[in-house]
Amino acid sequence: MTRIRPAILCGGSGERLWPLSRKSAPKPFHTLLSDRTLFEDTLLRCTGEGEGVSFSDPLIIAGQAIEQPVRDALKSAGITAASMAFEPMGKNTAPAAGIAALLAQKQDGPEALVLLVPSDHHIAPVSKFRETIAAAAPLAADGKIVVFGIPPTRPETGYGYIRQGEALGEGFAVEKFEEKPNVDTAKDYLAAGNMLWNAGIFLFRADVLLGELGLYEPDVLATINLALSEDDSIDADLFSTGPSIPIDIAVMERTKYAAVVPARFDWSDVGTWPSLMDAVEADEEGNVLAGDVTALDTTGSYVRGEGITVTALGVDNLVIVATKDAVFVAPKDKAHDVKKILGTLKEKGRDELS
Amino acid sequence: MTRIRPAILCGGSGERLWPLSRKSAPKPFHTLLSDRTLFEDTLLRCTGEGEGVSFSDPLIIAGQAIEQPVRDALKSAGITAASMAFEPMGKNTAPAAGIAALLAQKQDGPEALVLLVPSDHHIAPVSKFRETIAAAAPLAADGKIVVFGIPPTRPETGYGYIRQGEALGEGFAVEKFEEKPNVDTAKDYLAAGNMLWNAGIFLFRADVLLGELGLYEPDVLATINLALSEDDSIDADLFSTGPSIPIDIAVMERTKYAAVVPARFDWSDVGTWPSLMDAVEADEEGNVLAGDVTALDTTGSYVRGEGITVTALGVDNLVIVATKDAVFVAPKDKAHDVKKILGTLKEKGRDELS
Repeated sequence: MTRIRPAILCGGSGERLWPLSRKSAPKPFHTLLSDRTLFEDTLLRCTGEGEGVSFSDPLIIAGQAIEQPVRDALKSAGITAASMAFEPMGKNTAPAAGIAALLAQKQDGPEALVLLVPSDHHIAPVSKFRETIAAAAPLAADGKIVVFGIPPTRPETGYGYIRQGEALGEGFAVEKFEEKPNVDTAKDYLAAGNMLWNAGIFLFRADVLLGELGLYEPDVLATINLALSEDDSIDADLFSTGPSIPIDIAVMERTKYAAVVPARFDWSDVGTWPSLMDAVEADEEGNVLAGDVTALDTTGSYVRGEGITVTALGVDNLVIVATKDAVFVAPKDKAHDVKKILGTLKEKGRDELS
Repeated sequence: MTRIRPAILCGGSGERLWPLSRKSAPKPFHTLLSDRTLFEDTLLRCTGEGEGVSFSDPLIIAGQAIEQPVRDALKSAGITAASMAFEPMGKNTAPAAGIAALLAQKQDGPEALVLLVPSDHHIAPVSKFRETIAAAAPLAADGKIVVFGIPPTRPETGYGYIRQGEALGEGFAVEKFEEKPNVDTAKDYLAAGNMLWNAGIFLFRADVLLGELGLYEPDVLATINLALSEDDSIDADLFSTGPSIPIDIAVMERTKYAAVVPARFDWSDVGTWPSLMDAVEADEEGNVLAGDVTALDTTGSYVRGEGITVTALGVDNLVIVATKDAVFVAPKDKAHDVKKILGTLKEKGRDELS
C-alpha cells in the first residue's frame, strides 16, 4: 500500500462554462456531473485506502478569492485535516506545484509522493483512477516525474498530447510534449497509437520536483521559498514578484525524468458545455437537462436552469444555460466559444457578469 | 369633424407572449413595439382631433385584476378624464361591447358613435388609422355596425376573414365571416381579392349595438343592464351569471347591419413572438434585439432580456425571451406554440409562472 499525498489545485475560473462559472463561484464549486461539486468529487476521489493506494490528508493549493468556498466544501465533505495554502494571485501551475512539494516535504519528508490534481475534471471510475496511481507509484518513487496520459478516443484539438517513448515500468518515457494540434494532425495522432492526451495530473517525489524546479526555474523556487510562511500562508508582495508559468513548461518539457503512465480511467476536462454534455449520460432524446428545465420536442440539447426556469420548444442541438442574472444560448458546435460573449460583455463594462 | 367615443378593451393575458406576458402583467402593459406600452399607444392613438375625427375621452373596459396597471398607464399618458368599468371576470367581448355602448349612451346619448378597440394590437401610422375611422363614420351613423378589415398580405392561418359583399359607402356589406382557414384555403383567400382579415375593431352607434345585442343575445344585454351600476362598477354576482361570448358570434355573424371598411393602416395582432418580430424593423442581420441582449454571429432571431442579461452566439432564426424568473427558447417557426410550454408548466403545478 503506497502512501500518496494528494495536492489539489483550485485556481482558474472556468470561463468557458459561463454563465454558471464565475470568478466568485468558479467551476470546481458547481454540481455539474453528480450531486456533488467537482471539487468535492476530487476530494473524495483522493481519500482513504484501496487499490494499492493510501491517500494521506490532502493539500489544497487555491486562490485566495475562493478560500471560503474551499473551506465550505471541505466541511461538507467531512474533511477536517487538510493543509491549505491560498495564493494571493494566480501564477499558473509551476509555483503551485512547488508549494505542494514544499508542504509535502515538511509533513512527510523529502521522498513524499505527491499527486498533483486539478479539481475540475471528470474522472471515473474511482477504482481505476486509484489503480493507475498505484501503477505509477514505483516510477515516481524511483525519481521520475510522472504525467498521466489519456488514450485518445477522437481527434481532439483542445488538448495537448504526449508522445510515448521507450517502455518504462508500467509506463513510458516521454519522447515529446506536443501542443494542441490542428484537426489533421489530431487525426494522425489518433491513428498513431503512441500519443496520449495530457490530463495535467502528475505524480512525483517532493525532492525531485523541487530539484528540477530549482534547476530550470530557480526564480520560481526562490519565490515560493521566500513567500511561503511556516503557517502555510503566502506573502502577497513576495509572491507577486515571481514568474507565472505552467509546470509543463517550467519542468516537464525540460526534465530528463519525465515519464507518462496511460490512464485506465475515463477522463474529460469538462472545460466547455459540449464536453460537459458528452461526459454525462443523455436521455432518450439525446438531451441533458439540469435544474429547473421544461423541454418539449427537443433533441440533442444541453439545457440548464439554476435559480430560474428554462423552457425550450422544438430546438435541436442547442446549449441553453441560464442563471438568475444571465442566459447563454448557442448551437452545441459553437458553445465552446462562449469566451467571445464574455469578451463583448467586458467591452461593454459588464464586469459584474464575469 | 365626427365625434367618436373610443372604448378600449383590456382583457386577455396574451399567453402566447409568455414568459413576458403574465396574468399579473399582461400583454398591453409591456413596451413591445415602441418605448410606450401597447396600452399607452392605443390610448394615444384614440385621443384629440385630426383627419376628420375628434375623439372624446376614452371608455376603458378592463379586467378587475389589472385595475392598477390601467390606472397607472392612464396617469403616465396624462389622461385624467377616462370612464372605466372593471369586469369582475372575463366574459369575452360581447358583454364588454355592450357595457361600452351603455356607458357611451349615458354620456353622449343613444346615437353616440363608439369605436371598440383592443389594447394590444400594432397599428401604424396613426393618421391612416384616423382616416379609416373617419371614412367609416357615415356608415356607422347610418346604423351599420362596422368592422374593420385588413387587406391580407400573406396566406395567414391565424386570423378570421371577412368576405366583402356589395359596395356600401366607403366600405362593403359583409357577405360572410369565415373561420381561421387552413393554409390552402388561406392561399385562395389571398388570391380572391375580396377577403379581409378581421381585426376585431368595430365602429357602431350605441343604440344600434344594444338593439342587436338585445335581439340576438338578450341574456347578455339583461346581465349587463343589471350588473352595471350608476357609478360604472360591475356587480360580480350578477355579472358572473351571464353568458361568455364574443361580439363576433353574438352580433356580427347574425346582424343584417354588418359592414366592413378596409383599413388603410398597417395592422398586426402581435399575438405571438414571430408576429411581434415581423411588426418591427429588424437590424442588418435580420435580428430584433430588445432589452439587455448581446448577440454575436446571430441572424434572423428575436432576442429579448427583461431584468436579465441574454446572450446568443451563432444562432439562426431563434426566439429567445427571458425575464427574471423564466426563459423561453424556440425556433421562430415554432415559437407560436408557446402555450404547449405553459400547459406543461401548469401540469407541473408551476402556476406562479403563468
